[in-house]
Amino acid sequence: MENIIRKGIAFGPKLLESFDKLIEKKGYKNRSEAVRDIIRKELIEEEITQPRKKMMASLTIVFDHNKHEIEHDLIHQQHEAGFVKSTLHIHVDKDNCMEVLVLEGPTKEIKEFSDRILAQKGVKHGKLVFTGV
Amino acid sequence: MENIIRKGIAFGPKLLESFDKLIEKKGYKNRSEAVRDIIRKELIEEEITQPRKKMMASLTIVFDHNKHEIEHDLIHQQHEAGFVKSTLHIHVDKDNCMEVLVLEGPTKEIKEFSDRILAQKGVKHGKLVFTGV
Amino acid sequence: MENIIRKGIAFGPKLLESFDKLIEKKGYKNRSEAVRDIIRKELIEEEITQPRKKMMASLTIVFDHNKHEIEHDLIHQQHEAGFVKSTLHIHVDKDNCMEVLVLEGPTKEIKEFSDRILAQKGVKHGKLVFTGV
Amino acid sequence: MENIIRKGIAFGPKLLESFDKLIEKKGYKNRSEAVRDIIRKELIEEEITQPRKKMMASLTIVFDHNKHEIEHDLIHQQHEAGFVKSTLHIHVDKDNCMEVLVLEGPTKEIKEFSDRILAQKGVKHGKLVFTGV
Repeated sequence: MENIIRKGIAFGPKLLESFDKLIEKKGYKNRSEAVRDIIRKELIEEEITQPRKKMMASLTIVFDHNKHEIEHDLIHQQHEAGFVKSTLHIHVDKDNCMEVLVLEGPTKEIKEFSDRILAQKGVKHGKLVFTGV
Repeated sequence: MENIIRKGIAFGPKLLESFDKLIEKKGYKNRSEAVRDIIRKELIEEEITQPRKKMMASLTIVFDHNKHEIEHDLIHQQHEAGFVKSTLHIHVDKDNCMEVLVLEGPTKEIKEFSDRILAQKGVKHGKLVFTGV
Repeated sequence: MENIIRKGIAFGPKLLESFDKLIEKKGYKNRSEAVRDIIRKELIEEEITQPRKKMMASLTIVFDHNKHEIEHDLIHQQHEAGFVKSTLHIHVDKDNCMEVLVLEGPTKEIKEFSDRILAQKGVKHGKLVFTGV
Repeated sequence: MENIIRKGIAFGPKLLESFDKLIEKKGYKNRSEAVRDIIRKELIEEEITQPRKKMMASLTIVFDHNKHEIEHDLIHQQHEAGFVKSTLHIHVDKDNCMEVLVLEGPTKEIKEFSDRILAQKGVKHGKLVFTGV
């Protein structure tokens, strides 16, 4: 467990009131937790811009499994890339599948891998999300 | 299989050249595929703004499993909500877990559910991604 | 002038260290200023989702002034709308102009006005930014 | 004037129908115009990631003019930087001003300049928007 450090942060009364309303609406139990979460979000946005920073990410894609060989190609690309740690597959309807790939690697390579997957015939949509750790 | 409709789209030569370079860099094999993908992205961005539109989504979170009862609480909230279809869990390091939840429901309720999960003590970061279908 | 309220916020040491590095890099002189700025950003992101919330915004557009009547049409639309407060015009090159419109009104109407401007023939690109107050 | 090149783009009927509805809602008079606009948006998103790419941008800020010397500091920083082309100033209320700076320069330097301005005491919020040309 980490030790906790307490720091005094200065607020104007109107800003503090608006913030407290916002975090109550979102379901936060305390202000420190909310401040830490938005700080982490800022840090991750910064880290994403560093090409060699090693991060974890999830890539969510939707694809049409009827396209010739798409599943085979997707699996092949994933093994080639070497930074797919795990996948989750959902049968959406008769034609469409959703797949979430959990990735770990340098941000630049993860973005390029993601571009290649999304450009593949049959992959209709997708989005990459980086996360810390 | 859907029938294919071909439509003539007018481009200026510079725009067409820049676009062709971009999609080659991303790995697209043909221009129609690339145009369709960016159109789908636009459609999803629009659908997200409609509160009652039923969509699929993935919520990627990172949490510290040392926090008292967090796993129990997360599972409880997921069952309460009723629109978590599937989850994928990854052990990241000694303290941290990553979890991807696949969700299906109206955009408004999915956003509120996501806010509640992210506000929970121990959940450090997360991001919601909507996807079509 | 507002009175200042000081609140203790709890940080883990690693998060505090990373945050202090980030804000030093961005040029912040003190931590409270940085925390307040990211809180304001969160508040604005929330306010944007409320259709009737009155906000200020800037719409930056690039257009080709050779297109027949575009300037006349743009000015006409701006007067119709009634919430354009001010504009700034920059001659970019032989063909292109950049224009920044400062807008004030309910978020929903500002978005619709922005869509109409961006859809206009000759307007090549643009982006809407909401801001507080 | 550029010559127009017409290219056939293949759509599935459902995607075409959804796209046509979307662009009608946004106010587009024809499909080519809409396709070109979203392609330009994609190109700009790509260009932003290239640190040395010279681009135009607008930076919208809100600041409290009561803060000691803020206007003097802002003007000084703008002259130092050398890539502020023009500014627009709006008096919002008793305390707050809104200012839009039009910038031209390499994306990396524009981002750093923007960070410095936003970090300045008294600047409460702001957002940077890149645009093509």
